[in-house]
Amino acid sequence: MKIKLVTIITESILEQMLVNDIKNLGAKGYTILEARGSGAHGNRSADWGQNQNIQIEIICNESTANAICEHCQKNYYPYYAMVIFTSDIQVLRSDKF
Amino acid sequence: MKIKLVTIITESILEQMLVNDIKNLGAKGYTILEARGSGAHGNRSADWGQNQNIQIEIICNESTANAICEHCQKNYYPYYAMVIFTSDIQVLRSDKF
Amino acid sequence: MKIKLVTIITESILEQMLVNDIKNLGAKGYTILEARGSGAHGNRSADWGQNQNIQIEIICNESTANAICEHCQKNYYPYYAMVIFTSDIQVLRSDKF
Repeated sequence: MKIKLVTIITESILEQMLVNDIKNLGAKGYTILEARGSGAHGNRSADWGQNQNIQIEIICNESTANAICEHCQKNYYPYYAMVIFTSDIQVLRSDKF
Repeated sequence: MKIKLVTIITESILEQMLVNDIKNLGAKGYTILEARGSGAHGNRSADWGQNQNIQIEIICNESTANAICEHCQKNYYPYYAMVIFTSDIQVLRSDKF
Repeated sequence: MKIKLVTIITESILEQMLVNDIKNLGAKGYTILEARGSGAHGNRSADWGQNQNIQIEIICNESTANAICEHCQKNYYPYYAMVIFTSDIQVLRSDKF
């Protein structure tokens, strides 16, 4: 099974909503890192002042990864500073995801 | 030489033991990020309450990456909340790893 | 268009200079995570005492990724503890990077 790492960088205020969303979309867990940044990585105004962000990492199968990306693109991208990217990873105990 | 990024997400309490382990297994360095999370990403009880975790990143050759994964799977996976994944990266000065 | 994630792990003191550099080299944004580590991951003396570092992540096209790597290799690698690696990622709204 192909396993994906989904990384969401966005505004801290969205944390609880996103955690609920990704759970409902089939993710088995997540990791959150405190981050700051600016520009297209997470700043509505696109200036280079830094904003408090979170980086959410989700290890999941390709189908859940696609569901999370589509959900965020539809519901958050138009209204919040958010970047999502996915990458291919190899995991131990892939049955867990 | 193929270079790997090994990412370990686990309980903060394991930090010093893991740092010693990866050094002994051939890693030349590591980076630690404070993280929190829940679910299969690092929570023994698999509920969705958040735990204090660390994310350890190790840049190393494929052989060291495999050794780290096998060591953790044998010695930590049965007893602690831990996720390990690897990915392919390109580095400058690959002779350092 | 091929999109890259560039990850720079280095000394905290370089933050403002690097942010200016990557902006001038064409990056549209960046994310910074607080990190600590040692060894070849960011420690001039190569001992295993931990140093305060930052991890800078930049999503950009391949050309900007190469420019950032070359710039850092020339201007920072000889003088500071620094590791740079790149990886292939898939992004939504790739026109933003």
